[in-house]
Amino acid sequence: MKVLVIGAAGMVGRKLVAALLATGQVGGQAISHLALADVVAPTAPPSPITITTAAVDLSVPEVAGQLVADRPDLIFHLAAIVSGEAEADFEKGYRINLDGTRHLLEAIRHAGQAAPYRPRLVFTSSIAVFGEPLPEVIGDTHHLTPLTSYGTQKAICELLLSDYSRRGFVDGVGIRLPTIVVRPGKPNKAASGFFSGILREPLAGQPAVLPVADSVRHWFASPRAAVGFLLHAAAMDTALLGNQRNLTMPGLAATVGEEIAALERVAGAKAAGLIQRVPDAVIADIVAGWPKAFEASRARRLGFTGETSFDEIIRIHIEDELGGRIG
Amino acid sequence: MKVLVIGAAGMVGRKLVAALLATGQVGGQAISHLALADVVAPTAPPSPITITTAAVDLSVPEVAGQLVADRPDLIFHLAAIVSGEAEADFEKGYRINLDGTRHLLEAIRHAGQAAPYRPRLVFTSSIAVFGEPLPEVIGDTHHLTPLTSYGTQKAICELLLSDYSRRGFVDGVGIRLPTIVVRPGKPNKAASGFFSGILREPLAGQPAVLPVADSVRHWFASPRAAVGFLLHAAAMDTALLGNQRNLTMPGLAATVGEEIAALERVAGAKAAGLIQRVPDAVIADIVAGWPKAFEASRARRLGFTGETSFDEIIRIHIEDELGGRIG
Repeated sequence: MKVLVIGAAGMVGRKLVAALLATGQVGGQAISHLALADVVAPTAPPSPITITTAAVDLSVPEVAGQLVADRPDLIFHLAAIVSGEAEADFEKGYRINLDGTRHLLEAIRHAGQAAPYRPRLVFTSSIAVFGEPLPEVIGDTHHLTPLTSYGTQKAICELLLSDYSRRGFVDGVGIRLPTIVVRPGKPNKAASGFFSGILREPLAGQPAVLPVADSVRHWFASPRAAVGFLLHAAAMDTALLGNQRNLTMPGLAATVGEEIAALERVAGAKAAGLIQRVPDAVIADIVAGWPKAFEASRARRLGFTGETSFDEIIRIHIEDELGGRIG
Repeated sequence: MKVLVIGAAGMVGRKLVAALLATGQVGGQAISHLALADVVAPTAPPSPITITTAAVDLSVPEVAGQLVADRPDLIFHLAAIVSGEAEADFEKGYRINLDGTRHLLEAIRHAGQAAPYRPRLVFTSSIAVFGEPLPEVIGDTHHLTPLTSYGTQKAICELLLSDYSRRGFVDGVGIRLPTIVVRPGKPNKAASGFFSGILREPLAGQPAVLPVADSVRHWFASPRAAVGFLLHAAAMDTALLGNQRNLTMPGLAATVGEEIAALERVAGAKAAGLIQRVPDAVIADIVAGWPKAFEASRARRLGFTGETSFDEIIRIHIEDELGGRIG
């Protein structure tokens, strides 16, 4: 089967590509060709599978047509302008996150007009489609009231994915990712950055700042779980989805205090002691409006699985990013 | 104040224009200029208010800019390709119902970049944004899972309306209209046509066909109520909406049997006897997936009011369309 990954240079994209190449198959079907696209040309890891890479701007209408010209059987669409940038640059956010996705859907539809074509399209949405007021635990039938342009764009793409799937143009699965922890790499300025930072930095022997109260509760999954969601969505029986093509992924609902307790269990009191509590009212306000927990019953019934403890999330980071050793 | 009505030649549009001209004001503010636009040039009724009319295609990007060039304070956007046509012509539906609305929002945003401008925009959405599986009574926080391209396009426009309002580009209110009965005019081929037909035809002394069971339950409002919703949305305090700019309008939940009983009470057994039961499995199947009832608590709290009995809906038709007389 031919596989296309759009957004292959991002953190989750790179891990997905590594997982695809590790097994060389998806749902039992061997991968014959892997095409990787992103705004910067993704690196092609060494592999017996034919890999092509392309630096593309999905907001240019013709680009999507070029990407699907080879008629990939499976497309992962992970590319997006992140939340902060979509809020800072209104036009760019809509151009990439909405128009880019629509161009892709249209290119697939047009390819299907020339000759039968209905690829599996796995689209990464986000829990940013939900906005307050929110119940403590959000059910699978709760409405989407995004409070950012990014969340709005993701919610719109979910609707398009369902309609294009219902019409038979594409075989879509939209997955709403939890907040991914532990993100590898440097600290960033995202409001959610501390959720990863208070684990990643102490595990590397570095201090980290915690800007919110220990009681703050949120919804998490590891990068490894995110890749698992993508692969499960790629191979699942979509007949079970009916016309509702979008799913809230299972995650772990946990407080910052529980996160720190897990760090102490896994890496000791010294690591936990590297966390400095420096309250930041601005960040606390932003985070207060975020989802705390989901039922995600539908996704669980459909076989998606996430972590059940922060200990597990921390151990995955140590295994996948730190070579099994704590700094 | 300057008022623009897009979709002024439609059934609800014409009644809205008549209501605006009857009082010459909205929320206590006198109307100085009324601009009417539709795909065919709307008729300008005689009035002391300055009225301009235009035949426009909102899917042409420049058109929206021309419509808002005069910087109307209040815009009613009622224009849409109807459900059946949007399903039959996929591209036309997205071009008019989605792109047209987006062009309008963008034209307003661009006008605001030149000089401060933030008009009230009243947008007519539809209960077609909801799709099965549905609870018997749909609450205000139930998710939108449209089962038609029309419903998808309306749901997307709702999301855009909220985001553009949150960003301060426009002051939007989206209202999800119930099924409107009694629609005046000739019978049409819409699957919902019989809900009006079984009242309208007998009230004119004509036979009518009922293709579904008497037990079928649905959600209704009169054309007069629809105009009332639009006028209330035009004048309400939108600060009360927060970031959730879209509202399910209050309606009347009633079965076809209750509808017929009301006809018999208002117009006699002879009128009710003109209804011929001719079951149609195709129509019955379509209608089975439609919403049966809504809470609409939020809209009611915000002062929107609909009918409370089918007797009232029938009397409104007799007053507004039949000159008070039953044929």
